[in-house]
Amino acid sequence: MIIREQDMKNETDIDIEQAADFLDLSPSRFSELLDKKLIRQNWDQYNNLFRFTNHISDIDTGSVLLDHNGSFELVKGFPKIRRAMLLEPAIQANFSDNSTVVVEEKMNGYNVRILNYKGKLIALTRSGHVCPYSTERAQNLLNKCFFEEYPDIVVYGEMAGPENPYVRKDIYEIDSLDFFVFDMRRKNDGGALPVSERRTLAEKYGFRQVEIFGEFSIPEAASKIKNIIKNLGDKGHEGVIIKDPNMVLQPIKYTSSESNCADLQHAFKFYNEAGRDYIFSRVVREGFQSAEWNESEEELMERCLRLGESILRPMRKSIEEVQDGARIADDSRIRVKDKKVIDEFKSYLERLGLDVVFSPAIKVGDEYIVDIKKINNSTSDKTLGIIKGQLWS
Amino acid sequence: MIIREQDMKNETDIDIEQAADFLDLSPSRFSELLDKKLIRQNWDQYNNLFRFTNHISDIDTGSVLLDHNGSFELVKGFPKIRRAMLLEPAIQANFSDNSTVVVEEKMNGYNVRILNYKGKLIALTRSGHVCPYSTERAQNLLNKCFFEEYPDIVVYGEMAGPENPYVRKDIYEIDSLDFFVFDMRRKNDGGALPVSERRTLAEKYGFRQVEIFGEFSIPEAASKIKNIIKNLGDKGHEGVIIKDPNMVLQPIKYTSSESNCADLQHAFKFYNEAGRDYIFSRVVREGFQSAEWNESEEELMERCLRLGESILRPMRKSIEEVQDGARIADDSRIRVKDKKVIDEFKSYLERLGLDVVFSPAIKVGDEYIVDIKKINNSTSDKTLGIIKGQLWS
Repeated sequence: MIIREQDMKNETDIDIEQAADFLDLSPSRFSELLDKKLIRQNWDQYNNLFRFTNHISDIDTGSVLLDHNGSFELVKGFPKIRRAMLLEPAIQANFSDNSTVVVEEKMNGYNVRILNYKGKLIALTRSGHVCPYSTERAQNLLNKCFFEEYPDIVVYGEMAGPENPYVRKDIYEIDSLDFFVFDMRRKNDGGALPVSERRTLAEKYGFRQVEIFGEFSIPEAASKIKNIIKNLGDKGHEGVIIKDPNMVLQPIKYTSSESNCADLQHAFKFYNEAGRDYIFSRVVREGFQSAEWNESEEELMERCLRLGESILRPMRKSIEEVQDGARIADDSRIRVKDKKVIDEFKSYLERLGLDVVFSPAIKVGDEYIVDIKKINNSTSDKTLGIIKGQLWS
Repeated sequence: MIIREQDMKNETDIDIEQAADFLDLSPSRFSELLDKKLIRQNWDQYNNLFRFTNHISDIDTGSVLLDHNGSFELVKGFPKIRRAMLLEPAIQANFSDNSTVVVEEKMNGYNVRILNYKGKLIALTRSGHVCPYSTERAQNLLNKCFFEEYPDIVVYGEMAGPENPYVRKDIYEIDSLDFFVFDMRRKNDGGALPVSERRTLAEKYGFRQVEIFGEFSIPEAASKIKNIIKNLGDKGHEGVIIKDPNMVLQPIKYTSSESNCADLQHAFKFYNEAGRDYIFSRVVREGFQSAEWNESEEELMERCLRLGESILRPMRKSIEEVQDGARIADDSRIRVKDKKVIDEFKSYLERLGLDVVFSPAIKVGDEYIVDIKKINNSTSDKTLGIIKGQLWS
């Protein structure tokens, strides 16, 4: 039987008074948040973790409260990073109090936070779930000593690579999946370590890190980043995060045209579910980049063609596949050492509401590979209807 | 002072009992619809016209109830015409009971219904308002004898041309604005005349009509229409309406790629107000047309480029205009014989919530020309913000 998270209730013996006090909320407010599932309890062995499904007070969505029998810790969520549409004015306005900015790569994978939980590493996703696959990978990829020596630090990073069940990317010269640190933050207040301190620590403990492109003065940053972005785009990479070296001011992000278009390409494969705002925002970025970079007619034509192809080619392919009797699916693959994680991960995805098919596990060396198909009924059904003569609306 | 329709109330002495009885509603339901402004009263000399702002029972949005001192007439709205995504299956499924379909041009202008009202022609827009400009044009363009001889018939058609304050198009070899009949319907039940009968009548009274491309057997229709659409596209024209010759089955529409792209071009000029669904639906049409027409690689590339250009060129132009200190506006022009219609039309647009600037009237022959600027603050302000360093969200 498939259990769906939406049908589950909070069934907790958390001490409401103490938890509320820790979060600086009134007990009645905290109870209400639990009742309304704005704070939701995790399940099974992680049932003393509570994730914030909404932004509450100054606590971001995806933040997680850990209840250690009445003593509490808070792991803050991933702060929303706002986007520059025009690099130069955005850098000047956002970092007007700084003399420099640090530029690091924004990788295309999925965000997880790693922490030590009862003596083992666990991986919290962006939403604050404990992902069994990411957890198993983290346990194999990361040096646990760091977390024992710095128990008050949570490591924020990107899981990226081709064996990535969420965002499959072959662009990083990674065989399977790897973890790249981009942030370290204190528990409870969520304060971030300065960039250089974080990089030194990560290096010391052998963590892979997102690439750093340098520290630039404010006046030169936009033109430097333009060149970085063009190079990243040529390799199909996503973009950059522009940071205050001290991590006091909020970072901003900026992405390559190739990455915007790759997002569209994936979205239009499943055109009937494609979020309208998701599409629109990516398209608008292209317009601003073209304007800021003052592109030649030839460059503009290239960009127009790239944009058009990223929309029409995947859609046409999906239509033709359904015409040929197939159904549209999203294929991915995972690789684990611990075989029981496969079933755990399948239950986990189903609990979150996904319709997935797992292939039988194949043993390769000391690991198991499983192919995963996420079935996409909406686009398949809509296309099939149109092929049978259905009208649009 | 500018009066806005949203602030106005229904202040009517309509006989609720009789009106409700005519519409086959209960008096309390009819009163409720008036109270909730789901049926709204027109203003000034047309205050005995009531338009349906929503679909109610089987009465379409935009339908208009006329109250002649307790005797009533209903002018049905424009029935929503559904869209074929793939021509061949859509024609077969929609017209399976027919042996032929008639194909007429779908012009790109705005829809109005013309009827005789107290001895003069008036023009009702799609929403059911009495447009002063369209009314003045209809009075100059149409032979009133028809309406006297057929008082129970309403003429449905397209106002198209360059001097069109709603959808300005230079594609039809029209100097100013002209009216093209595409439908004749009976008052009250809204039943449509068969195509040939309607065309004969229109011709007899000297009305211009939308072009008819022919009557085709069901099996040949899709390939005939493909060629028609390609020719229309080459001229920048919009598309076709595919009709049951007897007008019993509902018509369906189908448009050219060039017209879909022209819509996008206009929408992206005002990118910050562009409706996400408006954009999405036009893009999806392109994918299906490309798939159905089984295009060569070269044709597909042309389509991708056309799509990309229709999105990025107007956006980039708007950004550059704001960078140069301008504000984005939509320019149009009207031409009237009766000078007082200029002020009436301006009040009308303002009442509907538009922010417009009218140039002084210039006399040309026996007519007056006025240039109209619709100010688009949203896109101008958003762009200016980004130029000053604002982030996207």
